[in-house]
Amino acid sequence: MSNDELAIRNLIGTWCRETEAGNLDAILPLMADDVVFLTPGRAPFGKKEFEANSRASAGKAQVKVEAEVEEVGVSGDLAYAWLKLSVKITPEGGAPMEMGGNTIGIYRREAGRWVLARDANLVM
Amino acid sequence: MSNDELAIRNLIGTWCRETEAGNLDAILPLMADDVVFLTPGRAPFGKKEFEANSRASAGKAQVKVEAEVEEVGVSGDLAYAWLKLSVKITPEGGAPMEMGGNTIGIYRREAGRWVLARDANLVM
Repeated sequence: MSNDELAIRNLIGTWCRETEAGNLDAILPLMADDVVFLTPGRAPFGKKEFEANSRASAGKAQVKVEAEVEEVGVSGDLAYAWLKLSVKITPEGGAPMEMGGNTIGIYRREAGRWVLARDANLVM
Repeated sequence: MSNDELAIRNLIGTWCRETEAGNLDAILPLMADDVVFLTPGRAPFGKKEFEANSRASAGKAQVKVEAEVEEVGVSGDLAYAWLKLSVKITPEGGAPMEMGGNTIGIYRREAGRWVLARDANLVM
């Protein structure tokens, strides 16, 4: 496995762990400032909306995220990763909801660091 | 615009035109043999299933596809394109159905030709 692939896999692992920990400040540096998130049935959104959504839901549920990395491809300063995501959200005093699905993320090397730049998320 | 970006935009245009024409034999060479299509609420599928689905629905509806290319990124032999797709399907003797949504496609240069390798399709 190349160092680049390893760095991207580490980024994905960190993203999941910090999402579970509710540590938004550790997640924001993992994405480009111009990141675009694409999800079903919703307009594309960026870093500010990601941050606002995360702050609005902070502390209201316990979140478990598992990312199975199906594939990583790298060429120069561009890469992609195909993930199979499983998400379990347990609201305070509520029943757990489980969701799953695939994502394709586009990563970009910026000043020597890989960041998520585009994300198509099919989790429903 | 680079020659690579132009080639990928041409591929996308050809894909739409040939889909409207129902010309599957012109579409299959635009994708890698190991292509993976990711769509909401369905298991990932490949070229054989794409072909079987297309043959099963051939001639049963009139299809209009418009792809607005939001962005193309290229690095070496890897590229991605973010599209905003609009699809209108008019079944024989039926009312038209309109769908829309974003896609992210991963393209690979194979023997000097760009082909679609992975596709995350959020059209609903």
